[in-house]
Amino acid sequence: MSNIHQQLLQDCLILGRFPLSHLLLLNDANYPWFILVPNRDDISEIYQLSEADQQQLIRESSLLCRMLAEQFEADKMNVAALGNMVPQLHIHHVVRYRDDVAWPAPVWGAEPAKSYSNAGLQQVIKKLRVGLDEIVEFSWSELG
Amino acid sequence: MSNIHQQLLQDCLILGRFPLSHLLLLNDANYPWFILVPNRDDISEIYQLSEADQQQLIRESSLLCRMLAEQFEADKMNVAALGNMVPQLHIHHVVRYRDDVAWPAPVWGAEPAKSYSNAGLQQVIKKLRVGLDEIVEFSWSELG
Repeated sequence: MSNIHQQLLQDCLILGRFPLSHLLLLNDANYPWFILVPNRDDISEIYQLSEADQQQLIRESSLLCRMLAEQFEADKMNVAALGNMVPQLHIHHVVRYRDDVAWPAPVWGAEPAKSYSNAGLQQVIKKLRVGLDEIVEFSWSELG
Repeated sequence: MSNIHQQLLQDCLILGRFPLSHLLLLNDANYPWFILVPNRDDISEIYQLSEADQQQLIRESSLLCRMLAEQFEADKMNVAALGNMVPQLHIHHVVRYRDDVAWPAPVWGAEPAKSYSNAGLQQVIKKLRVGLDEIVEFSWSELG
């Protein structure tokens, strides 16, 4: 895990791994907000990945989005690779609702992060257990 | 072109096409801001595309990003599929600079759009001519 940027480690919980990417949960209870971090060194843009890795990335991103949309009954998924502050390539996957605190604006900078309560976190993990256990390519971290 | 959402047609100039996606230039001179619109009906999320289309999308996105980063000497590319307001799947590709008006914040909602002057637009098109003419999969629209 040494290859995940310090800022991401500070803001997130590591859930586990797909073949290419670590899956992180951002500690912000305003939205179910997940981050994929491809396990490759010195990459800050998707196009810098090999073609095979790019294809694996979109595969993992879509498996994740489809599961999140279903388990969290999303109105919309927001997917973004920004990286203006944390240079390591990481791709946001945010479950959006028409009544969330930022809708229809993007989530970045809209509201200060709100840490999960224990109960809130357990509720999210419970939904993830159902959804991620169906994705054979995913392995839980020791959290599991 | 009837399959491009009215709001996108209103805000953008159609530059041309990749095999899967239309390429649009957003009329906002604050940033070189491009949008890929996969030419498929009734799709609002990347994961709703077929696997083959998903792989073609990331291919087109990366060809575009690499070219933009080079021609526009980007400090960072921002790539995002949001769609909270326009339901048709469209993927933003924004060239970012450390001294642009919104940096390091995301561009959405940061500044009101600033229409291109004729000279500004010609300057962008000139760079695109150099970059896009090297991408064999891209065809210019009648604009060309």
